[in-house]
Amino acid sequence: MSTTQEQTGWLASDELESARERLPIVYVDAVPVRIDDLGQVVSVGLLLRARPDGTISRAVVSGRVQYGERIRDALLRHLEKDLGSVALPRLPVSPSPFTVIEYFPSPDVSGFHDPRQHAVSLAFVVPVAGDCRPSQNALDLVWMSPEEAVSDAVISEMTGGQDRLVRLALAHSGMLP
Amino acid sequence: MSTTQEQTGWLASDELESARERLPIVYVDAVPVRIDDLGQVVSVGLLLRARPDGTISRAVVSGRVQYGERIRDALLRHLEKDLGSVALPRLPVSPSPFTVIEYFPSPDVSGFHDPRQHAVSLAFVVPVAGDCRPSQNALDLVWMSPEEAVSDAVISEMTGGQDRLVRLALAHSGMLP
Amino acid sequence: MSTTQEQTGWLASDELESARERLPIVYVDAVPVRIDDLGQVVSVGLLLRARPDGTISRAVVSGRVQYGERIRDALLRHLEKDLGSVALPRLPVSPSPFTVIEYFPSPDVSGFHDPRQHAVSLAFVVPVAGDCRPSQNALDLVWMSPEEAVSDAVISEMTGGQDRLVRLALAHSGMLP
Amino acid sequence: MSTTQEQTGWLASDELESARERLPIVYVDAVPVRIDDLGQVVSVGLLLRARPDGTISRAVVSGRVQYGERIRDALLRHLEKDLGSVALPRLPVSPSPFTVIEYFPSPDVSGFHDPRQHAVSLAFVVPVAGDCRPSQNALDLVWMSPEEAVSDAVISEMTGGQDRLVRLALAHSGMLP
Repeated sequence: MSTTQEQTGWLASDELESARERLPIVYVDAVPVRIDDLGQVVSVGLLLRARPDGTISRAVVSGRVQYGERIRDALLRHLEKDLGSVALPRLPVSPSPFTVIEYFPSPDVSGFHDPRQHAVSLAFVVPVAGDCRPSQNALDLVWMSPEEAVSDAVISEMTGGQDRLVRLALAHSGMLP
Repeated sequence: MSTTQEQTGWLASDELESARERLPIVYVDAVPVRIDDLGQVVSVGLLLRARPDGTISRAVVSGRVQYGERIRDALLRHLEKDLGSVALPRLPVSPSPFTVIEYFPSPDVSGFHDPRQHAVSLAFVVPVAGDCRPSQNALDLVWMSPEEAVSDAVISEMTGGQDRLVRLALAHSGMLP
Repeated sequence: MSTTQEQTGWLASDELESARERLPIVYVDAVPVRIDDLGQVVSVGLLLRARPDGTISRAVVSGRVQYGERIRDALLRHLEKDLGSVALPRLPVSPSPFTVIEYFPSPDVSGFHDPRQHAVSLAFVVPVAGDCRPSQNALDLVWMSPEEAVSDAVISEMTGGQDRLVRLALAHSGMLP
Repeated sequence: MSTTQEQTGWLASDELESARERLPIVYVDAVPVRIDDLGQVVSVGLLLRARPDGTISRAVVSGRVQYGERIRDALLRHLEKDLGSVALPRLPVSPSPFTVIEYFPSPDVSGFHDPRQHAVSLAFVVPVAGDCRPSQNALDLVWMSPEEAVSDAVISEMTGGQDRLVRLALAHSGMLP
């Protein structure tokens, strides 16, 4: 591993594979929302993307925290990667996530499933004030009302527990229908 | 009481006095902060104002919730009243306060003291992005770093438990020195 | 009003009626749960009781905070009143409620409805370790799994937003199905 | 690595060393407290132990989350390891930590320091109801009031940011002096 890799926190692909079989990996999940002037959630942003289980499904912003990286920096990096550089995310003041999602290779342990790894993910609701353009892995981004986001039609497009994560985020925001 | 008063939630002065001797009054406390792009608290705003105990001291934004008024509306109203109309406060997404402050007429019950009443106050940390100008009752507004805000010199300028409220807000934000 | 009434926080019935038309009233809501050794919610306790809207419906523990009373004392008092004196409730360490419920006389403002008053209620999830016997106003107490508690059949037995309150409590506990 | 090791989440010592240079490691911190019947913190438990920086200092319960292990199981395992098997810890109902501590090999990044690794630690306040006996690595366990726990004398016995963690825990509990 080169010095540059070490400093930036990137692992060679095979090293990451190896670590994923032996250690829980630190993740962040960010549920992007639009809010009104009173701070109330008006709509939820869901990406359309290839999921680790091979499906194309709706999902929130998510990604790994690198070695040496602050949680806040990882949040901002993944938000910009998935929503573009002018999304203007408003990162939370408190370091405490609204929930912790435990993804396991087996779908039966927690109901949250990632076939690649055991990931411990800190989940945040993040208001975005700017223009969002899905980038890189994301194929599409749609904004929907809290009611739509928990509708049967939308839930059927989510896998791995993403639908539950959205409901938990809405509950935290006091907007679970 | 006129219809207008009822609808706006205002009480005649003597009616409010009477209620204050018999019921806990619902309040909101808002600790105004400046944050950086990563959401971290950079400075805390403290007003200089006449406190209910007759002192002139440093304090956060605070006020009563009126009949029929939503918590979020009360927060916004008091923030605009104390910081001006272009403070651009970012109200929290979650309805859950970071702490609940119980003010009692006796200073010994909880350490939070309001000689006028028993108040139950929902406390929030509120980032403000715009220009702040102290208005109405506030004589002055100063911004200080977390370190300054918990210094002995500043603590000595706060009464009624306001210094503890500031420390609780910084702890919630992960920035208690 | 007698001295005794003042000290205990009780109001004469007509005085309370009058205050209820002019001020938001401070309440606590407690969602009683059974937990396992790991702290996970196994079942939710729902009372069967006469609700302020005149229906008989399923509801959580709820009640007013009196003048001079600490939130924690009010929580314990209402839990003992509704679940009996040997329920052994484990009050939360943090004073911060998991959500704040705003009950309004009109069902349209927040979705939480109390025809008698505008109440601001601090909501807590409270594990109970002892024997529970519904007392006073409660006609019955049933324990049900998180899945049952959010089933259509049970939701149809709840009014005034109590079903949403139960879902918010389960979401906070990480157990929303 | 043997199958048994893989299943239990243990790594060979050199593999853990290697991973620690490349990935943030998932940890839990538990601040043990004694509470009264109203849930209020009466005292804080601090261990005396050898810290990763080589000092003997006061510290809270802390440890790594293993591959395949739930956060709750890791919390219980480390509490039993440090406080003994009859401490009767009351694990939190909510999966959300009251704060997240980011330990870095450099003391300057976050103020929380672990020379061995970059650790992301989910921090919980955990009431214990039973008898506590320090075991394994812990040399001693003392209970002290919130006032003592934040006194200059006790703070001087803590390194790596443990004193700040204790203050954050007390603030979350509403008991920061």
